[in-house]
Amino acid sequence: MPAITGRTTVIAHIGHPTELFASPSIYNPWFQARNVDAVVVPFGVRAEEFPALLPLVTRMSNFGGALITMPHKVTVMSVVDEVTPTARIAGAANAVKVGDDGRLLGDQFDGMGFVNGALAKGCVFQGRSALVVGSGGVGSAIAASVAGAGVARLGVHDARPGVADDLAGRIAEHWPGLELSTDSNDPAGYDIVVNATPLGMEPGDPLPVDVERISPGAFVGDVVLRGTTPFLRAALRRGCAVQVGTDMLFEQIPSYLRYFGLGETTAQELRALAELTE
Amino acid sequence: MPAITGRTTVIAHIGHPTELFASPSIYNPWFQARNVDAVVVPFGVRAEEFPALLPLVTRMSNFGGALITMPHKVTVMSVVDEVTPTARIAGAANAVKVGDDGRLLGDQFDGMGFVNGALAKGCVFQGRSALVVGSGGVGSAIAASVAGAGVARLGVHDARPGVADDLAGRIAEHWPGLELSTDSNDPAGYDIVVNATPLGMEPGDPLPVDVERISPGAFVGDVVLRGTTPFLRAALRRGCAVQVGTDMLFEQIPSYLRYFGLGETTAQELRALAELTE
Repeated sequence: MPAITGRTTVIAHIGHPTELFASPSIYNPWFQARNVDAVVVPFGVRAEEFPALLPLVTRMSNFGGALITMPHKVTVMSVVDEVTPTARIAGAANAVKVGDDGRLLGDQFDGMGFVNGALAKGCVFQGRSALVVGSGGVGSAIAASVAGAGVARLGVHDARPGVADDLAGRIAEHWPGLELSTDSNDPAGYDIVVNATPLGMEPGDPLPVDVERISPGAFVGDVVLRGTTPFLRAALRRGCAVQVGTDMLFEQIPSYLRYFGLGETTAQELRALAELTE
Repeated sequence: MPAITGRTTVIAHIGHPTELFASPSIYNPWFQARNVDAVVVPFGVRAEEFPALLPLVTRMSNFGGALITMPHKVTVMSVVDEVTPTARIAGAANAVKVGDDGRLLGDQFDGMGFVNGALAKGCVFQGRSALVVGSGGVGSAIAASVAGAGVARLGVHDARPGVADDLAGRIAEHWPGLELSTDSNDPAGYDIVVNATPLGMEPGDPLPVDVERISPGAFVGDVVLRGTTPFLRAALRRGCAVQVGTDMLFEQIPSYLRYFGLGETTAQELRALAELTE
């Protein structure tokens, strides 16, 4: 780990609970290897404190940026002053920095991380169909990026009434030619199937979709940071290609580092340096 | 440095500016050596943000305590729910934790650090006279601890009108037999002379008192964390025994660690492990 001094830039990793945060174990070894005087620090902030805390933290003299995670990825949109189109369509942001004019800016790279990782594994999006289950912050971001990557048909689904419809509405505005549905989490007939729900974080969680109905040729991704989850194991048994949550994580981190002005790297370099014990 | 994860306890070191913070370089190597999963992180918080930020930070799920430094040591007294008598007399706190009932508690160990360090160097307080120049947070704390250590005569002085008188009033309530004066920073006739002003932090600062009037047998201390300051060098040339700011710092840290429930140590062990580049 880099030695922390009073000159060290703090990247606040804000979410709750913090126990499974992987980012400190990825960013901090890279900062040390590259002699970047910065540190990612977990801030275990509950939903009710977040809107008041974030602006104050961003005004700290040694603030270098914030990584925003559950349960704040959606809330943060109304706390910052300005968001990028990517974040607006996703309805969620997970990176906050202070602009040159002092305004708080929000962006998000979750979806880009998922798509980049899948492309690197040979997954084709152009003209294909995708189902993204879970329309919270990360699910919305993935759905928006998958749409941007050129799928012809997109299913989004969320167990909470209306949530997937709101997401589909934002996506439809930007990609009017896209065939959208929100009424089912049935993976049958989809080329790409993504779990963007928390199911799989706890032992004994049900699987997010009926894996027996996934096409054996489908590409299956999971956002849960638990290695090869029961969902992915079941998909592998069906013959699917899969992507674990940490792949999405590593693929997006170069974008964050660039966004915060902390340097250039690759997912490969980050992975080689990371100290994950997963 | 210890590897930071989502399970790491954060000790927020809150002040502004942060550049000269020494605590991260003292606490963090000790945490690593003792396998304590905690980290001291600088929070560069300005005066106007502090009253709103502190309560929010203390409600973080991984909050383990706060070290409060300039310019918040006095302000913090009205932000926490309860302070110890030591802090009340000093009019300043520099340690905040959450009590079992969720109330915010403030205490301070600056003065204890100064006295313990001086005692270890053979300085005698009982029945002697002391001058403490500067009645801000740290000066007030030192004056209170010096009074508690048994001096018979105490001079406190501050360039700001009324500040030393307020401190003297609080001290007089607790030690009614103590001879107190607030009208001069003349060190003549004092057995112990302490600079508790920031003078000496910047090159070219004037000396805090007229060193030529310090008794050659006096014990002279400085709170400025710049090694042997020009003030202390002048005192050494007069033949005085001296104590540097970092001595006060090391002597108080075992008290903070105990206060936060993070373990037991000594100033000697901390000093052996510290990574100060001073």
